[in-house]
Amino acid sequence: MSRSYRVAILGATGAVGKELIELLATRNFPLADLKLLASPRSAGTTLSFKGETLRVESTDTSSFQAIDLVLASAGGNTSKALAPRAVASGAIVIDNSSAYRMDPNVPLIIPEVNPQEVHQHQGIIANPNCTTILMNVVVWPLHQVQPIKRIVASTYQSASGAGAKAMAEVISQSRDVLDGKQPNPEVFPYPLAFNLFLHNSPMTATGYCEEELKMINETRKIFGDSSIRITATCVRVPILRAHSEALNLEFHQPLSADKAKMLLQQAPGVRLVEDWQNNYFPMPIEASGLDEVLVGRIRQDLSHDCGLDLWLSGDQIRKGAALNAVQIAELLISS
Amino acid sequence: MSRSYRVAILGATGAVGKELIELLATRNFPLADLKLLASPRSAGTTLSFKGETLRVESTDTSSFQAIDLVLASAGGNTSKALAPRAVASGAIVIDNSSAYRMDPNVPLIIPEVNPQEVHQHQGIIANPNCTTILMNVVVWPLHQVQPIKRIVASTYQSASGAGAKAMAEVISQSRDVLDGKQPNPEVFPYPLAFNLFLHNSPMTATGYCEEELKMINETRKIFGDSSIRITATCVRVPILRAHSEALNLEFHQPLSADKAKMLLQQAPGVRLVEDWQNNYFPMPIEASGLDEVLVGRIRQDLSHDCGLDLWLSGDQIRKGAALNAVQIAELLISS
Repeated sequence: MSRSYRVAILGATGAVGKELIELLATRNFPLADLKLLASPRSAGTTLSFKGETLRVESTDTSSFQAIDLVLASAGGNTSKALAPRAVASGAIVIDNSSAYRMDPNVPLIIPEVNPQEVHQHQGIIANPNCTTILMNVVVWPLHQVQPIKRIVASTYQSASGAGAKAMAEVISQSRDVLDGKQPNPEVFPYPLAFNLFLHNSPMTATGYCEEELKMINETRKIFGDSSIRITATCVRVPILRAHSEALNLEFHQPLSADKAKMLLQQAPGVRLVEDWQNNYFPMPIEASGLDEVLVGRIRQDLSHDCGLDLWLSGDQIRKGAALNAVQIAELLISS
Repeated sequence: MSRSYRVAILGATGAVGKELIELLATRNFPLADLKLLASPRSAGTTLSFKGETLRVESTDTSSFQAIDLVLASAGGNTSKALAPRAVASGAIVIDNSSAYRMDPNVPLIIPEVNPQEVHQHQGIIANPNCTTILMNVVVWPLHQVQPIKRIVASTYQSASGAGAKAMAEVISQSRDVLDGKQPNPEVFPYPLAFNLFLHNSPMTATGYCEEELKMINETRKIFGDSSIRITATCVRVPILRAHSEALNLEFHQPLSADKAKMLLQQAPGVRLVEDWQNNYFPMPIEASGLDEVLVGRIRQDLSHDCGLDLWLSGDQIRKGAALNAVQIAELLISS
């Protein structure tokens, strides 16, 4: 790769795509060229980048010619169809979909956790699921010092995880409810305004939905530890942006809450938010737009000698998706 | 006690008080008289009962004369001040506050769990906290067949738990946010519209807030089992009414998900809601106004051989407060 890079964003008009564009600008990623790609439906849309107006192009067989790096965020099927073509054209693909995450030939990277694996790619590097990234950034610094045996995770996931249309749906539904009208779900299967429901990703034979299995399987791969036990309940809540998670951590040996706080205070990508007197801990409205995952309310588990309970909120679009992808790109070109 | 009863509702104008009035009507509680009591501020308000208009009276030293039964829902301080007076006047008090719940001389009753203890009172019977009631109605039928060792609970609690003003605040804040204005929290410490935060009950030295300790301590008392281990993270979400809970249950011996479903299908006060194909499980908008606690998504815990995960939603004002109190009253007069 050269000192500046020809980058294509696949899925440029989506919530994550737009955040990728903003992050490449604000983080001054060394660009020789920026190509915005989307479906034929969105082609022709214009988006601004560092004051310039860029036209979104429809993706075709020649889209990846003379491209060094593809940041893909257009869903699993699109990635399955297009990532091999991009790789064949000589590009490296950082894929935000779930298509390649569990492929043994594809590194699954969180820069704060397993940066050393970034170069073990064969053209594709996968970006983990949002709930996995937020959990792992917080849990990894503890796991390194005191290995974790088991995690019980409950999530509080915002509409943004289902894209820009889902965020718009919550807003319009909320207005409907306030006006005494029946909300009309289109993106989600059930109304989300003033309601919540278990995550609507496809159900599996295990009784876990795919979103929950991602937290389990991706964490094991990223940590390089297939022995770590995880159970998760993923819930969609009427929040626009930023996911929260209640984590119960069981370690093999006790880890004190004070030690955990000290470790998290020094951890990259994490900000400790705890004001016990004012009952002030991480909240999604405050995590929105931030790079760091907010963590707090770290306490000794009264039900287990080797347990800790903690609470986190993190921007799902940013660190949960776009920022992590850009960090992978930065890692890739830095070494 | 006679065959019909002179009942006073203390805190009649609150969200729970109004529900108590409705339940006494719809369940045809045998009333000789119904007295509605509140603070001087609310005195003079009129409320309807079976077509009659009743005037709310200010509570004073003579309020409990010639009263058989007091249903108290006016907060812990009011109960502490007034319940002993009511008992001295010869009334039995069913107290919805936390004031007497952990008093060893006060039975703490969920009619589906420990009805046999209702007569062991010395004038006061306590109604458990909403999150405790909803959890215990579901967990007890399992615990009786296969004893539970440990529970990890995460809650999704609606505004109604903080009263009618809190519900109004979420509505007005939501309108503000949709109109581009800053939400202005008064009842809650932080904005709840399109946001969520850890439960704002007073923090304790354990790092758990009081709401969380209630789930732990009240469950042990109600189950009559001080060995059961519980940890809880209580979270306030922007829902108007009905709480939800993600429960991870660890049994001493394995209990299959199928057996648990069978037990819960037969359990009183519980409705199994599971349509796996349509990803349809309990939701707070559907639990609102129902007597039963909705439970579903019962599955084998992939992280523990003796574990089950499940999900519930229940009407916090109804079974979580007013209904349970009326059921205690019914139990008291039935035997």
